Amino acid sequence: MTKGKRKKPVDHRTRVGQERSARTETRILEAALKVFAELGPDAAKIDDFVEAAGISRGTFYNYFESVEELLDATSEWTTRTLLDTVERALEGVEGPVLRYGVGTRLFLAKARRDPVWCLFVARVWKLGGLEGALRDLEEGLRLGVFRAPSLEAARAIVFGGVREALFHIGSGRASPAYGDDVTETCLQALGVDARRIAAVRKHELPSWQPNEEVES
Amino acid sequence: MTKGKRKKPVDHRTRVGQERSARTETRILEAALKVFAELGPDAAKIDDFVEAAGISRGTFYNYFESVEELLDATSEWTTRTLLDTVERALEGVEGPVLRYGVGTRLFLAKARRDPVWCLFVARVWKLGGLEGALRDLEEGLRLGVFRAPSLEAARAIVFGGVREALFHIGSGRASPAYGDDVTETCLQALGVDARRIAAVRKHELPSWQPNEEVES
Repeated sequence: MTKGKRKKPVDHRTRVGQERSARTETRILEAALKVFAELGPDAAKIDDFVEAAGISRGTFYNYFESVEELLDATSEWTTRTLLDTVERALEGVEGPVLRYGVGTRLFLAKARRDPVWCLFVARVWKLGGLEGALRDLEEGLRLGVFRAPSLEAARAIVFGGVREALFHIGSGRASPAYGDDVTETCLQALGVDARRIAAVRKHELPSWQPNEEVES
Repeated sequence: MTKGKRKKPVDHRTRVGQERSARTETRILEAALKVFAELGPDAAKIDDFVEAAGISRGTFYNYFESVEELLDATSEWTTRTLLDTVERALEGVEGPVLRYGVGTRLFLAKARRDPVWCLFVARVWKLGGLEGALRDLEEGLRLGVFRAPSLEAARAIVFGGVREALFHIGSGRASPAYGDDVTETCLQALGVDARRIAAVRKHELPSWQPNEEVES
C-alpha cells in the first residue's frame, strides 16, 4: 500500500484525466441523443453536435471521427444501458409470457417518462440489443405459450409495433393506458390467452433503475 | 366541330406541352422514389434527384421548389395510386376481416415484387392513405370480429408491424410465405379466430392492376 501511495500523484493525474475524458464523452453522447432524436439519423451534421454539447470541433474529433461513428456509439451506449436495466428489473420474473409482457410494459413506461430517449429509439434504433426479448420470444414459441406462423413474422409485428408506439408516445398524444394497451395487443399477436394477458397487466411494474449516465 | 378543328393547332401545341410536362413530372417522381428509397427522406439533396432523373437543376425547379416539396409529392403520388389499386382489387370482397386481411396480403405481395417501392414506403411513409384499412379496422372492432384494448394500440401494432415487414422484404431475405405469415400475425393481434384466419389465407389474391405510371 505504501508503494501504491508513492505512485499516487501520477495515478491521480491519470485518473482525473480519464474521468474528465469520460465526462466529455458522456456529454457528447447525451447531446447526440437529443440531436439525433430531433433531426433523425441522416440530416444531422457535426456542427449540430458541437453546438449542442458546447465543445469545439477539435474536441469533437478527439472522440469521434464522423457522424456515423457517433451514431453507432450513441446507439450502443443507449442499448447497453437499456439492456442492463431491463435485465436487472426482470430478475425474479418467471416464464417467457410474464418476462416478455412485463419487459414491454417497462420499456414503454420508460419511453413515456423520457421523450428524448423515446424519439431517439423510434428513429434510430436498428432493433439491436433485443437479445433478452428475443430469447423470451423463442422460448415461448418452443413451449407453445406463444403461437405464430413463424418467428420472423412475430418479430416484425411485435418489434415494429412497439417502434410505431414509440412515435405516438414521443408525440405526447398517447393516453396513460397506451403502453399497457400496446403490450396487450402484442401478447394477443403472439396468441396468448386472455387469462395470461390479464396476469401481465396486473403484475407489479418493477422499478426502473438506470445507470445514472442515461438520465438527463 | 369545324370550329374546334380550326383551333386545333393551338390545342395541339398546348396538349403536347402539357403531356411533355406531365411526362417530365412523372420522370422526376419515379427518380425520387428510387433516391428516397436508397438514401432515406433526410439525406437526399437536389443534385441526387437531378442526376437520377437526367434533367437540369433549372428543370427541377420548374416543377418543385425543394426536397420537402418533392417528398410530399412523391408520397402523395405513391399513396394515391396505391389506394386506388387496393380499393379496385378488393371490389366484391365482403366483410372487414376478409377485406383487411386480403388487402394486407395484396400489399405485401406488391412489396415483394417491387423492392424500390417497398423501401420507399418503409422509410418515408407517414402512414397516410390508409383510409380503407382504417375503415375496415374500425368496422371490425365495432362488429366485434376484431378485439383490441384500443384502436390506437391496434393501429400501432398492425401498421408498425407491416412497416417493419417491409424493411425485411426490401432486404431480399424474406421467405415466399413471409407476407402471408405477417398477415396472419396481424389478424391474430386483432383477436381474429383461427377459422377466419384460415379463410383469409385461402382466399384467392385479387390481381394487382396499378396505374401504369407506378410500374418501373
